[in-house]
Parts: sequence; C-alpha cells; structure tokens
Amino acid sequence: MTANTLGPTTKTSRAAATRTADHRAPDLLLAARRACEPILRESIGALPDPLRRMAGYHFGWWNVGGVPTAADSGKSLRAALTRAAAAACGGADSERAAAAVELLHNFTLVHDDVMDRDRTRRGRATIWAIWGANDAILLGDVLHTLSFRMVCTGLPVATTAGAVSRLAHASIEVCRGQQEDCEFETRTGVTMGEYIAMAAGKTGALMGCATALGALCAGADPETVSALDTFGRELGLAFQFVDDIMGLWGDPAVTGKPAGRDLVRRKRTLPIVAALETDTEAARTLAGRYRSSLPMTPAEIAAATELVTAAGGRETALRHANERIDTALAALPAELRADDLRALARLVTDRER
Amino acid sequence: MTANTLGPTTKTSRAAATRTADHRAPDLLLAARRACEPILRESIGALPDPLRRMAGYHFGWWNVGGVPTAADSGKSLRAALTRAAAAACGGADSERAAAAVELLHNFTLVHDDVMDRDRTRRGRATIWAIWGANDAILLGDVLHTLSFRMVCTGLPVATTAGAVSRLAHASIEVCRGQQEDCEFETRTGVTMGEYIAMAAGKTGALMGCATALGALCAGADPETVSALDTFGRELGLAFQFVDDIMGLWGDPAVTGKPAGRDLVRRKRTLPIVAALETDTEAARTLAGRYRSSLPMTPAEIAAATELVTAAGGRETALRHANERIDTALAALPAELRADDLRALARLVTDRER
Repeated sequence: MTANTLGPTTKTSRAAATRTADHRAPDLLLAARRACEPILRESIGALPDPLRRMAGYHFGWWNVGGVPTAADSGKSLRAALTRAAAAACGGADSERAAAAVELLHNFTLVHDDVMDRDRTRRGRATIWAIWGANDAILLGDVLHTLSFRMVCTGLPVATTAGAVSRLAHASIEVCRGQQEDCEFETRTGVTMGEYIAMAAGKTGALMGCATALGALCAGADPETVSALDTFGRELGLAFQFVDDIMGLWGDPAVTGKPAGRDLVRRKRTLPIVAALETDTEAARTLAGRYRSSLPMTPAEIAAATELVTAAGGRETALRHANERIDTALAALPAELRADDLRALARLVTDRER
Repeated sequence: MTANTLGPTTKTSRAAATRTADHRAPDLLLAARRACEPILRESIGALPDPLRRMAGYHFGWWNVGGVPTAADSGKSLRAALTRAAAAACGGADSERAAAAVELLHNFTLVHDDVMDRDRTRRGRATIWAIWGANDAILLGDVLHTLSFRMVCTGLPVATTAGAVSRLAHASIEVCRGQQEDCEFETRTGVTMGEYIAMAAGKTGALMGCATALGALCAGADPETVSALDTFGRELGLAFQFVDDIMGLWGDPAVTGKPAGRDLVRRKRTLPIVAALETDTEAARTLAGRYRSSLPMTPAEIAAATELVTAAGGRETALRHANERIDTALAALPAELRADDLRALARLVTDRER
C-alpha cells in the first residue's frame, strides 16, 4: 500500500491535516512511547512471575526467556491521542491516563488473539501461541486490572470517577464489539449497519476514551470532553476501516499479519461486507466462496481479493474511512490548539501497518 | 459430609464461634444476597446483549433464553464478609463494596470454568459450555470491568483509592493463584508450601479483600483494616482447604460438582499433596495412579480416594483448615463487635457446599 492510503478527503479537512502531519506524527508516537514506557514498566514490573515475564514479552521488552530485546511494542497511537488531547485542552500531565489506555488496549489484544486463534502479532508469536490459552487469559486479566488501577490512582481526585466511568464504558464496548465480530463469522448475512456498530465498539470506543481522558486530565469542560470523545471515536472507526483495507491489500511484510487472513477465516470486514451487499456477479461468486469453509490456496485468496475489488468493496471502504476522518476533524472545537490531533488523524489514513 | 466438617478447633475459638454461628450465619448470607442483588441487577442490566443475558444466567436469575428463574446464585459469602466487617467496625453502608467483591468473584469463576473445562457450576451448565469459550472470556471481562466501576464510583471519595488498590491487588493475586493451580496439573511434584502459596492467591486474597473493603467503608484505621484483611485471608485459606476436602469426600448431590473430579484431573489439592508427601505405601500407589493420564472408573476413583485417606491426607487437610480458622479468629481486634464475622467463620468449617 502506498503512503497515501485513502486519497483526497474533502478539501478543507485534508488541507488542515496535511499542513501538520508529515513530520509531527511519528514524533508524537515516539514521545508517547517514551513517556509511557517507564510507567508501564513500573506497573508490570510489580506483577508476579510468570505473568510479569509474559507481559514484558508482549510489550516487546524481553524475549520468551526474559532477556532484554527491542521488539516492536506497538504504535502507541492511543497513548499519543491521550497526550495530544490533553495538550489541545491546555493540560500537560496525562501520562498515567495514556498508560491506562495502552494497558486496556493491550488487554484486549491478548484476549482477542486467544479468541481469534491469531498466532502472530507485531511479527512475533502471540502469548497464547507460546504459553497456552489459559495463561493468555490470565495475562489479559491482569493487564485489565493494571489499567483500572492506573486510572484510579494516577489522576486528580476530582477527575477519577469520570475517568473510571469512561474507561469502564470503553472496556464494555470493546467486549461487545469483539463478541459481535466473533459472532459474524458464523453468520451468512451481515449488514453495513451491523458492521459499523460492531467496529464502533471494537475500535471506536477505546480511541474515544483515549482522547476523552486526555481532555479530562486537562480539566476541560464537559462539552469539550464530549467533542474529543467524538473525535477519537470517529477516528477509531476510520482506523478500523483502514485496518480492514490493509487486511486485504496490505503488504504482509509491513503489516506483520499473513496475507488474506480475513478471507481465509471468512471474516466480514468492511470491504467484504460492502462487496457482498452489491448486486454484482463478483458478489455472488464471493458469496459462494464464503459458503465453503475449505482452506484457500494463495491463488484462491488472490482471486477472492480481486472479487472484493471488482464489487467495489475497496472503494466503499475508502469512502467510509474518509467520511469518518472528516467527521472526526469537524468535531474538534475551533478554539483548541489541535495540530497534534490533526497530525495523528492524518497518520491513521497514511499508515501502512 | 456431616454438618461438623472439621471437628473441634482450639477450645477458645470454637466456643466463641459456636455461640453465634448456628442461627446467624444463614441469615447473614441471605441478607447479603438481598442487599446486593438489586445493585448487581442494575449494574448488569445496563450491559449490552448477549453479555447481559449471559450474566443474568450466570447469576441464576434467568434461564438460557432469558426467562426469569430462581436458580442458585451462589453463597454470597464474600458479600456477607464485607458487610459483617463493615458492621464490626461500626459502619453500615458497604453494599456497593460488597457487590464489587461479588462481581470480581464471579469474573474469576467464569474465566476459571473456561480454563478448567468445568461444565457444571451451581448445578447448571457453565457459560462456556453453553455459549462457547470466547463469549465466556468476554463475559468474565465485563464482570471484571463492572467490579472496578462499582468500587470506583460507589465509595466515599476518601476511601476510593485505597479500595481500588486492594481490589486490584486481590485480582492480580487471584490470577497468580489460578496460574499456579493450572501449572500444578502438569507437574509431578508440588510441595505443601507451594500449594498453600497458590491457595493464598486463588482464594485467600479475595476474601481478605472482602473484609478489608468492609473495614475501609466503615472508616476503620489502617491497623484494623489490615487485621480484617488477615482475618479474611486466613478464612479464605480454610475455605479452600475445606473445598479440597469436599472435592474428595463431599456429596455430589450437595456440592453440585461431580465426584472425584479432582482425582480424575490429577489435580494437586491439599489432601492429595499432603498424602503424596508421606512416606507410605498408599502414597506410592497414589503417585503411580497420578503418573497415568488414563480416565478413572468410579471404582478407581473410590480406591484413589481411599489411598488419600490411608496416607493421612484428609487428617492433614483438616488440621490445616482448623489452624487457619484459629489464626483468622485470633486476628480480630478485641474491641470489634465481631459476632457476625465469627458466625461466618464457623460457617466455613460447617458448610456442605
């Protein structure tokens, strides 16, 4: 996939985003990772073994044997969103909220990998693939706990209840979305509306929580917190749609995920749902492929991907992603210094993994 | 198993316990259930379906289809401990903390059933046996979330941070204990020390948290909170040891769990670990049985149970349970009005399920 994944959005939002994105966004991610890592290391370092060791492996700090390494620890996009939201609202001290969001995110990854039977993440074997499903369930549980502990003990007392409430809501929404996503695999029909509601839970809720917590840390008023929640939620939807596009057309060497995995597992991602909803020959052929549960050869994966393109699935998914980015940017109150948030929004459309 | 499971403890503690237990304890459990149920129903009622429906089934409120029923919703022992601890410290309003503890307890049950492949709990099919492991993982996750939300938003602001910290610590300790318990099944040797450390996490930590939260709600001083934590933790260990005894010698019709399950799965429970540590012919024969992973017939289960008895496993487990009860009772500060706590302690030794 080329750098400009989504093509032009509306003129205004694209112009606003482009001005700030190119150099700024990678720096924001790096700064978020650097700010959160000591907090995460301290939190995780206090876990009993082997949970501590498994967590450090998951975050890319150690190899399976506990020897320090420098593996991919994830994008830290959510932490960067929390910090950028806090900065936009004039606050600075949002590191512990950002770390709480990263902990919640990683809890969901560890459990999702068990449920989805994903053996690879960030180019390495997943927790359950190494330690088994039981230990992975338990590791997810303790990361979940650390997330709540972080948000309950690291924020000003006045904002704690509101922050916990948002984190809890996001956690439940993520579980709802994941439940629906799993359930879709056993169904023959999934509508666009159902798919988008699922993605709003699975991906939108936590990004909305990330930006809302940043605003809360900065002491923003309820309207601003709510606007930043909308920004993050809509951005999260765009993120998921781009993820779905990369799941079919991304380069496995860059994404770290096997090619055509979504098709092989008969997943219902946005381009596929959009393709299947069309009244086209390609959609009917694709639907036939989806009725069979036989393994697909690389050639069959390529052919199925082509069917999604032919039925307009890629185009529709791109349009939806652009619309969500525009809605996100439009939600930002004019008085905020939101250049960092715009840069991160631009990154979501330009990312390659 | 007869009503008096453990036989006499030391004279003092037994006398103190007996005076108050017989009529009081069942009333305390019932009152705890009645006080918590509306709070739990409100919390769970706000979950999205199907997670809401699964939760209501788990708590015994509804059948699989969501139709109201009155199935066993558990003992509510932990909620009763929180309330009794609060009452002992002169406080009254501990219902939300009690509900948080019950939510955390039930989160662990739902996940443990997945890990242990237990198909039956409280005489009904478990969540994963009906809805599958993925949905059960997600249900556990949302109950975990509700637990933290409950404790973060339901307590006086001054006690929130301390309460969350204790709930988080208990949650991590429970996961550590469960991890060790699973790991023991793959090992040939488990020492008594290792077993007790595991049980202190798996069962002791949450009961300690239950009583400590009650004290916190009542505004008790740190020494009293700590003493009540010790009381609960030691009581939890006794509870686990009695559970282990019932796992071998309990009546399946009363316990709701299949006979000899621990032996069939080659689990290392206290009577079994104690038996295997002895230098007896029975221990050597039992160790031989444990090296095989072949299924056991009912006759073989009965013979293996007899070997544990012959090697003194039951006697040792009873002694350990009594010692823990004595330690628990001794930890109670003299100035507390702790009759309810003593009644609940007595119940742990007398329970049949």
